[in-house]
Amino acid sequence: MGGTNLRAAVIDETGALIDRVEGRTNLAAGPEAVMDDIARSILELRGRCGGQLAGIGVAVPGIIEMQKGVVRESPNLPGFCDIPVRDEIERRIQAPVHLENDANAAALGEKWAGAGRAVDDLVLLTLGTGIGGGIIYGGKILHGFVGMAGELGHIQVVPNGNPCACGGHGCLEKHASATAVTLMARLLGLGENLTSEQVYHLARDGNAHARVVFATMGKALGVAIADLVNIFNFPLYLLSGGVLAAWEFFAPAMFEEVRRSSYVFRNSDTRIGKAELGKDAGLYGAARLPLTA
Amino acid sequence: MGGTNLRAAVIDETGALIDRVEGRTNLAAGPEAVMDDIARSILELRGRCGGQLAGIGVAVPGIIEMQKGVVRESPNLPGFCDIPVRDEIERRIQAPVHLENDANAAALGEKWAGAGRAVDDLVLLTLGTGIGGGIIYGGKILHGFVGMAGELGHIQVVPNGNPCACGGHGCLEKHASATAVTLMARLLGLGENLTSEQVYHLARDGNAHARVVFATMGKALGVAIADLVNIFNFPLYLLSGGVLAAWEFFAPAMFEEVRRSSYVFRNSDTRIGKAELGKDAGLYGAARLPLTA
Repeated sequence: MGGTNLRAAVIDETGALIDRVEGRTNLAAGPEAVMDDIARSILELRGRCGGQLAGIGVAVPGIIEMQKGVVRESPNLPGFCDIPVRDEIERRIQAPVHLENDANAAALGEKWAGAGRAVDDLVLLTLGTGIGGGIIYGGKILHGFVGMAGELGHIQVVPNGNPCACGGHGCLEKHASATAVTLMARLLGLGENLTSEQVYHLARDGNAHARVVFATMGKALGVAIADLVNIFNFPLYLLSGGVLAAWEFFAPAMFEEVRRSSYVFRNSDTRIGKAELGKDAGLYGAARLPLTA
Repeated sequence: MGGTNLRAAVIDETGALIDRVEGRTNLAAGPEAVMDDIARSILELRGRCGGQLAGIGVAVPGIIEMQKGVVRESPNLPGFCDIPVRDEIERRIQAPVHLENDANAAALGEKWAGAGRAVDDLVLLTLGTGIGGGIIYGGKILHGFVGMAGELGHIQVVPNGNPCACGGHGCLEKHASATAVTLMARLLGLGENLTSEQVYHLARDGNAHARVVFATMGKALGVAIADLVNIFNFPLYLLSGGVLAAWEFFAPAMFEEVRRSSYVFRNSDTRIGKAELGKDAGLYGAARLPLTA
């Protein structure tokens, strides 16, 4: 479940995607109607596909209380405030459901079927409207004690930087998300409401200001990744999301900052790379949940 | 093994300390002589104590390659550069040895026999000459892929802040260690080479500058802890080391910063508290290594 689209898929135990359905997330109709749509998608796919059902996973963009299966709140899903999504969907489809945060699910998906197949430990950063994070340790999602771990978009990279809705200042997602790219582009006179893709095209056409935007964003990202490398010493850090397209313009500044700031990076064979599954990562991760929980 | 003292202990499987020996770390004599001293301490304790030997753990302040049992380098142990400490001690005592970073061992010790007994997941920050870190997840040390995880003293809290030997700028240990307290005290005109304990006494006597030192240090610590809470969502974050004595003066600024900057902290029952075992934490952790590895 995303803020804009609902997508569901049947994925087999080898990680092959067998069938899928897509639709809009009708948030205006309220949480009950959205959960009806989710249940309908699942039931439709069950009707279409044979085989034995290993389980059902649902990924949502929001803060989740794992044990209760409750969406505490979600900036991208207005109306989903203390909603027992797991139980509500279970009731509708009469089968057990695993509920997970979307960035956590995406990280698990990349580990299972994407760019993280070769490792057991990785960190994924999703560079979208906001910045989400997922931590895979020993092949499983690191949840923390109520399920709020991996809030990597709120690592502070610029103290006394841009204020964030979370209460902090200078959070990573205020300086390296698609939203931050749009804001910087406006401040540097490139135009109003440019998407990060539009800013990328300007950079590719040689626009110096657009390149400064990505160099600045890359440095902020590098500060956070250096912290993560120093904390985890994992072999792999993956990036995904819309801003990833501009890799050629932000990656140099990112690597320079990580190399400068992280002794651990300089002294171990750490890889920072692109995620592979795009928007489908969450589908694969959700499908994998029943097999790793 | 510390930079100044060598300490060894016999600890039973219930976590009771049975016997101990202490001596100086004779770094001037070189690594071979220091490892001779370590082996002699272990053999002396084995001679004095009965019972069955479950295993031997050795904790050292430095960067370790876990699989090889090698001390890559150690700022506090000049001369220990690419030294195969594990194998060298094993050869001397003819028994298997578990080698571990001292902050990791201290974290494990606090989990086993100290302030972390009630939880399975915690982070320890040791506020000494530098700042070390240990991460316990599921009751075990989180090592990362070559054993360098937990370099928490190098989380960046002040971008473009004080340069650090690691290559970064504004690392936590440049702003919240005992060394940082001494430096700030000098800059604020309190005196040359004051220990953090002396600065603490000034603060307790009402000296406003000394209180500013700890408020500044507490805020820097709060930035790093907020990051860690957002990343891990663990139930417990422990502080130890010499600066801990000044808790009453740095803790308010620390808590204010964590509360302000971490949505996860505000919305979960997260505890930040004092470690209990002091300098013995590493002894307990080292003793626990053979039982958790």
